[in-house]
Amino acid sequence: MPLLIRSRALDLRLRHTFRTARGPSDVRENLLVEVEHQGETGLGEAAPIRRYGEDRASAAAAVSAMAGRLDDPRAYSLAAREAAVPGQVSAEAAVDMALHDLAGRRLGVPLFELLGLDRRRAPETSFTIGMDTPEVVARKVKEAAAYPILKVKMGSADDREMLTAVRDSTDRPIRVDANEGWTPEEALERLRWLAGMGVEFVEQPLPAGREEEMRALRRNSPLPFYADESVHRARDIPKLAGAFDGINIKLMKCGGLAEALRMIAVARAHGMKVMLGCMIESSIAITAAAHIAPLVDTADLDGNLLLDEDPFSGATVVDGRIVPPDAPGLGVRPRPG
Amino acid sequence: MPLLIRSRALDLRLRHTFRTARGPSDVRENLLVEVEHQGETGLGEAAPIRRYGEDRASAAAAVSAMAGRLDDPRAYSLAAREAAVPGQVSAEAAVDMALHDLAGRRLGVPLFELLGLDRRRAPETSFTIGMDTPEVVARKVKEAAAYPILKVKMGSADDREMLTAVRDSTDRPIRVDANEGWTPEEALERLRWLAGMGVEFVEQPLPAGREEEMRALRRNSPLPFYADESVHRARDIPKLAGAFDGINIKLMKCGGLAEALRMIAVARAHGMKVMLGCMIESSIAITAAAHIAPLVDTADLDGNLLLDEDPFSGATVVDGRIVPPDAPGLGVRPRPG
Repeated sequence: MPLLIRSRALDLRLRHTFRTARGPSDVRENLLVEVEHQGETGLGEAAPIRRYGEDRASAAAAVSAMAGRLDDPRAYSLAAREAAVPGQVSAEAAVDMALHDLAGRRLGVPLFELLGLDRRRAPETSFTIGMDTPEVVARKVKEAAAYPILKVKMGSADDREMLTAVRDSTDRPIRVDANEGWTPEEALERLRWLAGMGVEFVEQPLPAGREEEMRALRRNSPLPFYADESVHRARDIPKLAGAFDGINIKLMKCGGLAEALRMIAVARAHGMKVMLGCMIESSIAITAAAHIAPLVDTADLDGNLLLDEDPFSGATVVDGRIVPPDAPGLGVRPRPG
Repeated sequence: MPLLIRSRALDLRLRHTFRTARGPSDVRENLLVEVEHQGETGLGEAAPIRRYGEDRASAAAAVSAMAGRLDDPRAYSLAAREAAVPGQVSAEAAVDMALHDLAGRRLGVPLFELLGLDRRRAPETSFTIGMDTPEVVARKVKEAAAYPILKVKMGSADDREMLTAVRDSTDRPIRVDANEGWTPEEALERLRWLAGMGVEFVEQPLPAGREEEMRALRRNSPLPFYADESVHRARDIPKLAGAFDGINIKLMKCGGLAEALRMIAVARAHGMKVMLGCMIESSIAITAAAHIAPLVDTADLDGNLLLDEDPFSGATVVDGRIVPPDAPGLGVRPRPG
């Protein structure tokens, strides 16, 4: 029986307008991918990343091109990478997770079990507070009461006001995502201020490609660093040793679960910490990441929690930890709507 | 239903007395491990490595200790490592492969399929010619006619005579395993001579721990190097970049299939080649390695071919390539007789 691959639009409306250093956002134009083989269907999702030249149309075109190149869907750990269209990484991730879903469904086991993992090892997951006025920030922090860790996206002029508003609203741990927004000249002073505010670590203070300056900064920094934009795939990791303390793996950046597992192995070999992050995604992609979360130190898998309505249900947050479903494959289902 | 783990002696008699730089050998005292859970049994094998303080008794004791520490056999990619007894790596490998066998049998799929691999990617496997007189060497080369690549173990005074005897008997590619037997002073001259003999690469020319001297040697070497004794686990690999062109992964050195997969990821991230090697092993352990062989560049999985009688059947060599069975789990069976 042939392999069928379909994709269709998946519009995700945000609960709050989301402001980052890259501008505001209300709706995310994601792509749903279905892979059908021998009567089973696997689900995947692409959240195209504009910074890397992706949008929904380019992702859909890439998925179509990949359809013709996949010969054996059972080879789920190799097939998406080998069929991928260069530069269309979120499409690769969508096909990769659909193949993993399909494999788990076919064998009747949840993905974490297919991969030989223990879902009781679920790590704590943080909740991201978007940039906004101090009043809105205070309200968002209150709404996020169920999450044990907060993440604050910075990189604009009113960083301190924003962070102070969060700190004044809670004594939970705060992590800062600088989103490449700082210069080497200002970074150290900002880090010292953040350390004084009880911040736990900072993600990507300097732009990607400035690893030498990161290395120098790290020698004097009071806070640890996680790489985000500096790291896409496993091969990026060796050169980051010494520049960052950990890496943030996102399925949409790396091309899917198989590559994420390889990245975890490489990061560990270098003694680095691992975080699993996400884009704005439905429960399809969030749940895919949740299945491998037992292998990481910490998660930032809140992309679906920022949605006005998540069209799917899957991983849940239990006592602040992200737990994958105990159902075949990814275990996601359309939410009755 | 509880998890039962048993082990028993597995004596492997060699076809030829096997001479390496470490001395002669007629029988290998391996250990068979069975893990039983919910009516299914998974098989594993330990080939204890004397150089690392292991023997059959220490491996059996380690397996017993591990039995009490394994709570969830479904977590096959983590469980053996976490239950392992420090320093008893071949026992860890045996339990790891038994858990993989069990997982595949329980789900009714061959291990390569459980892991999402494509068994059509089987790499060529080499056949090892032990040290002996030129006459015996010539006969061994003839017996190995089915194997496309020969490996010669060196490290003694009559290296050249031995290698010349092989070269005179065949025009197949030859690989050399120096088994830590050279000094930095003599290495370059030997390498030049071997290059002239059409040798493809050299394994572990200098003793483990001399990575700085390896790095210097590599700059002038006409032949590429594979690490063997210098590399055990994934965390050893980053410091070998620049000193070796590739690594030789052996299940008995690294603790099993899960760690081997992590090592492949790390080696690839460093742009290194990967070989899968073995000890003297029955078809249990050889077949375990064959299931992940689609991920490597080349295999040296001949440990079972050197036996007078292999008590198990499993992976086969087809057109010089090592192919795992298409049967649940490892797919090994006791050989009638």
